[in-house]
Amino acid sequence: MKNKLDLAKAWTIEAGQYIRENMHNDLEIDEKTNHTDLVTNMDKSVQDKLVSCIKKKFPEDNILAEENNLRHSIAKGNVWVIDPIDGTSNFVSQKDNFAVMIAYFENGVGKFGIILDVMKENLYWGDGKKVFRNNDELQKPKINLMHSVIGVNSYMYRTNDHGLLDYSENTLGVRILGSAGIEYTKLIEGKISGYFSNLSPWDYAAGTIILSAFDYVTEAISGGNPKYDGREKVFTVEKSNLPLVREFIN
Amino acid sequence: MKNKLDLAKAWTIEAGQYIRENMHNDLEIDEKTNHTDLVTNMDKSVQDKLVSCIKKKFPEDNILAEENNLRHSIAKGNVWVIDPIDGTSNFVSQKDNFAVMIAYFENGVGKFGIILDVMKENLYWGDGKKVFRNNDELQKPKINLMHSVIGVNSYMYRTNDHGLLDYSENTLGVRILGSAGIEYTKLIEGKISGYFSNLSPWDYAAGTIILSAFDYVTEAISGGNPKYDGREKVFTVEKSNLPLVREFIN
Repeated sequence: MKNKLDLAKAWTIEAGQYIRENMHNDLEIDEKTNHTDLVTNMDKSVQDKLVSCIKKKFPEDNILAEENNLRHSIAKGNVWVIDPIDGTSNFVSQKDNFAVMIAYFENGVGKFGIILDVMKENLYWGDGKKVFRNNDELQKPKINLMHSVIGVNSYMYRTNDHGLLDYSENTLGVRILGSAGIEYTKLIEGKISGYFSNLSPWDYAAGTIILSAFDYVTEAISGGNPKYDGREKVFTVEKSNLPLVREFIN
Repeated sequence: MKNKLDLAKAWTIEAGQYIRENMHNDLEIDEKTNHTDLVTNMDKSVQDKLVSCIKKKFPEDNILAEENNLRHSIAKGNVWVIDPIDGTSNFVSQKDNFAVMIAYFENGVGKFGIILDVMKENLYWGDGKKVFRNNDELQKPKINLMHSVIGVNSYMYRTNDHGLLDYSENTLGVRILGSAGIEYTKLIEGKISGYFSNLSPWDYAAGTIILSAFDYVTEAISGGNPKYDGREKVFTVEKSNLPLVREFIN
């Protein structure tokens, strides 16, 4: 496992270097489901690079990834979950505030997660026991729900989806950053106390594994564990705060 | 003027150092108009320090500032506009993403603006002719409204105030950062193409002066120049984009 985690960290760092070196070349930008759901040639080439590293070293392992319809279930065997560029709108319009994410599962059990804030060159990673930013071990944040801000999906916030607007009014307010990966780095650092969004498995897998070391849980808003197959409304908070959050979110 | 700008930069940098050195002491936090409108003893002591620097060196000059009801009109004489900590909710809950801002006016004409991103130690400043981040001159960002994101006030966004939600749907989406000062640094860097909020003069004065060098304008949403007396709904965009923005925002 150590070996796989070390390799995955190195591959993620290399992916970040590749993006930073090539991001100012002309991008090919395509729309997926709508005009804000973007994919670029960079998303695809970064994913291809990561998949090829994994497959070369671990040919029996499987992939669940955002692009190219690689959709192996996390439930069976060794499965790598990849988001080559999370926050593609930010990548395209800001050249900042996007992430590369890898999560690794064995028979449905999350073994490690990695989130690279590409432009800040901060690598967040953990195996469910400890949490690191680069080489520094991080401590569990001390947060107070009422005196914190939360990360939200803009649509769910403004439509009060499952009570999210009501809940937000019992905090210091909402923040919208445009990248699940970046939101998870803010959760890890204690800069937001919860994150509520409509996400795919590659958006929440790495953050969920990393934050489990701090007793944070990711739940489907409709209840229970997220299904890890397809887009779903989910949230991540510290476990002891679940009852208070669930007074509003249900 | 050069002398005043250099002094103001030095005082702002000192204020940032003071905040970073003292921010982990116990804060006294008070609510102003509601539970999310906060002021701390740090806001007050930073403002006192800045006012005292100004008054010692320029005893005839006047002050318009967030705390302690210092409300001199910018229209007459030499006026310093101060926001000691912009983004107090972020300061309290994140210890990040807040700013110190100073703007300086002579008889209603903005002479210079300064925004310090305190935790990133980035000082943005300009005299309306050139724009700098620390010692680096910045170039006017190239932006495309439809392929950019915008900074918004959460309430105005979700209530479609003056068409803001409608307008946002013609962009790549909204971002909410919780500090006008930080939003203005994102405008300066071209990471957002517009900022729409309900602001006081000390929130928009510095950013407006700095960005005038890039032909950005701040307008009252109701039309015309902001009044610089009291809270008002305003927005800042590049001048040539005004007609397109005004198709929605009015």
